[in-house]
Amino acid sequence: MDIHDLTRRLKEKNDSKIVLLVADGLGGLPVEPGGPTELEAANTPNLDRWARKGVSGSMTPIKPGITPGSGPGHLGLFGYDPLKYVIGRGVLEASGIGFVVGPNDVAIRCNFCTLDADGNITNRRGGAGATDRLSTEEMIPRVEKLRQVSIPGVEVFVEPVREHRFAVIFRAEGLGGKVADTDPQKTGVPPLEPSADDYDSQRTAEVSKQFLAQARELLAGETKANGLTMRGFSVKPDLPTYEEVYGVRAAAIAVYPMYKGLAGLVGMEIVGEPGSLEEEIDVLEQAWGDYDFFFVHFKYTDSRGEDGNFQAKVEATEQFDAIVPRVEALNPDVVVVTGDHSTPSALSSHSWHPVPTLLVAKTCRPDACQAFGETEALSGGLGHFEAIYLMPLALAHAKRLAKFGA
Amino acid sequence: MDIHDLTRRLKEKNDSKIVLLVADGLGGLPVEPGGPTELEAANTPNLDRWARKGVSGSMTPIKPGITPGSGPGHLGLFGYDPLKYVIGRGVLEASGIGFVVGPNDVAIRCNFCTLDADGNITNRRGGAGATDRLSTEEMIPRVEKLRQVSIPGVEVFVEPVREHRFAVIFRAEGLGGKVADTDPQKTGVPPLEPSADDYDSQRTAEVSKQFLAQARELLAGETKANGLTMRGFSVKPDLPTYEEVYGVRAAAIAVYPMYKGLAGLVGMEIVGEPGSLEEEIDVLEQAWGDYDFFFVHFKYTDSRGEDGNFQAKVEATEQFDAIVPRVEALNPDVVVVTGDHSTPSALSSHSWHPVPTLLVAKTCRPDACQAFGETEALSGGLGHFEAIYLMPLALAHAKRLAKFGA
Repeated sequence: MDIHDLTRRLKEKNDSKIVLLVADGLGGLPVEPGGPTELEAANTPNLDRWARKGVSGSMTPIKPGITPGSGPGHLGLFGYDPLKYVIGRGVLEASGIGFVVGPNDVAIRCNFCTLDADGNITNRRGGAGATDRLSTEEMIPRVEKLRQVSIPGVEVFVEPVREHRFAVIFRAEGLGGKVADTDPQKTGVPPLEPSADDYDSQRTAEVSKQFLAQARELLAGETKANGLTMRGFSVKPDLPTYEEVYGVRAAAIAVYPMYKGLAGLVGMEIVGEPGSLEEEIDVLEQAWGDYDFFFVHFKYTDSRGEDGNFQAKVEATEQFDAIVPRVEALNPDVVVVTGDHSTPSALSSHSWHPVPTLLVAKTCRPDACQAFGETEALSGGLGHFEAIYLMPLALAHAKRLAKFGA
Repeated sequence: MDIHDLTRRLKEKNDSKIVLLVADGLGGLPVEPGGPTELEAANTPNLDRWARKGVSGSMTPIKPGITPGSGPGHLGLFGYDPLKYVIGRGVLEASGIGFVVGPNDVAIRCNFCTLDADGNITNRRGGAGATDRLSTEEMIPRVEKLRQVSIPGVEVFVEPVREHRFAVIFRAEGLGGKVADTDPQKTGVPPLEPSADDYDSQRTAEVSKQFLAQARELLAGETKANGLTMRGFSVKPDLPTYEEVYGVRAAAIAVYPMYKGLAGLVGMEIVGEPGSLEEEIDVLEQAWGDYDFFFVHFKYTDSRGEDGNFQAKVEATEQFDAIVPRVEALNPDVVVVTGDHSTPSALSSHSWHPVPTLLVAKTCRPDACQAFGETEALSGGLGHFEAIYLMPLALAHAKRLAKFGA
């Protein structure tokens, strides 16, 4: 039995408000033996106060030893088993530019490439010579040209990503996502024809061929980046919505498109267009009356970790701590503070280490934790637990889950 | 999704070295209320240093409350779900004498028994009277006689175990393992005929009948132990190899045949013929350049626990601690110290208690543990975890697992 089989059955509605504050890549490592992690080194009086008031724990995003990408990391936080629900590469690319992939969409990662007179690829990244690649400035007008493609019965979206990369989304009923990549992975040969791997995807392959034929015409005048390859064909994973599995109206507040896209996949509404953490909290305050659940994403703990800059991650963490009083002032029933994975600056990358996690509600049974940090969290009341249990815990503290059985 | 589905997909190769030091039956119990366990009573300065440097945890071999035998205990440590992979009794018996069971083998536990003139069993353990049993010295020459059995198209191995017990292995393609025991579990009746439970095992039953017919001739001159019964027919469980699921070349270093046999089942190479722990470390040093992963098995913590001798187990633990500097000098990237189960001397047997476990690597997030012991490990950074996650954790710290999802 899936945890959603339980929440779906036990969910109850009330007026409570839940806030999930995600500091991306929150967990860290010391830079010297016996030293503090970034979170432990940071001056976080507000989070520490919450740690004393609430309950802490050490959260495993997926399974011990497994380092999550942003997609599986967030699915886990949202309570969706990341080993069961796999987000295709095309859908992730579209999500990454904030395109909310719908149930009738096939999303495709595309690259501009350069073709010679015989239609053979001379540069797989759309450059003029053998090694250079198309710039973002050169890509944009080509994407705009491709928006002229018209295929009967199919809505076509062409969206810029960066450099030679862009995304195509076909929207129509009954389009399967099992079409093989057309990138031959080498030069001197033409792109492959789209070919379907199952019955449902035959129309997708057909639509792709029409798209490619029209694209060839539209790009015929270009001397470079006059062709394209298509990869990672995928449909929206069959994710039940937050409303369906938890009975909450959920809002997502994020600066970066990727996290809006991921939240959109589970049916959260993307609210506002904040450009900073402070503006995210502005949006939270404005939207407070309209939703039950708020996912607020803070990017820079991860970015500074990826940069390998311990001190900058410490500062990003302090910046995150500083907005706590504004969230507190809204008087939420349940607040969860966590990350989608660890990003230790010592590793300059995502890692498998557990993520310190905090839950604050009136119904918390106190633990001995006096501050919010990795080591303290080890002995916290939430123990060592898997990310997919965070949502049931939040719902329980919000009194939104009924008793199981009589 | 199995943890191996993840490791198989994410595994990466590099030059790192991982050492898994297994002190069999490591976990213990105090002999008086409030007293230390054997490990806590032992003077283990080296392991304590590793505990300060690395990360500790309390490992459940199978599931809480379940006491593992050596087979499931080691499968769990090796990362193979002991509830999914079951090692048949015949295969375990063969492994126990160091016979590495191959993919075309059927292994069978056999007992010499004594038959009367009518072919009825008078003694199920090969003795002359009703209750005595065959000695090992009497068993050996009979096993040697049985080695004359010749069955066309089948390689036959007859191997001594002890007293009236021996093992038979048939090697040929397509031999199933589902043949019922021929031991009628009583005297006064003849042994049962081998009978197959499925189609694939019909040839095995046929081969067994031929073996029994020839054995009857070869043992005809004996006045006791002139017959045999066959039990626990089993084939090698379909265990993927270490190379396949983890991408490592694995070496097993053990004194006792059972552990060599178990390691052989998961594709580890059995290295050297050490006769003591010190000689095992000699082998480790010699083989260091040739493998990525080393399983080193130390038996005496378990043996002394089984003896019910607290002080002797303390001493065995100290002997184990003493080899730590030699392992450290090899500069491994990851060291794991654990046991396959607990063997408290207070119980003189295996037990279900969790096993204190230690992982040392440069990428460890420190915890508060100051020594290696059961109580300290409870608050360690590895938390309370199941044995099957030890391998993914070791691989992660060796940077041998890629990110899951983008």
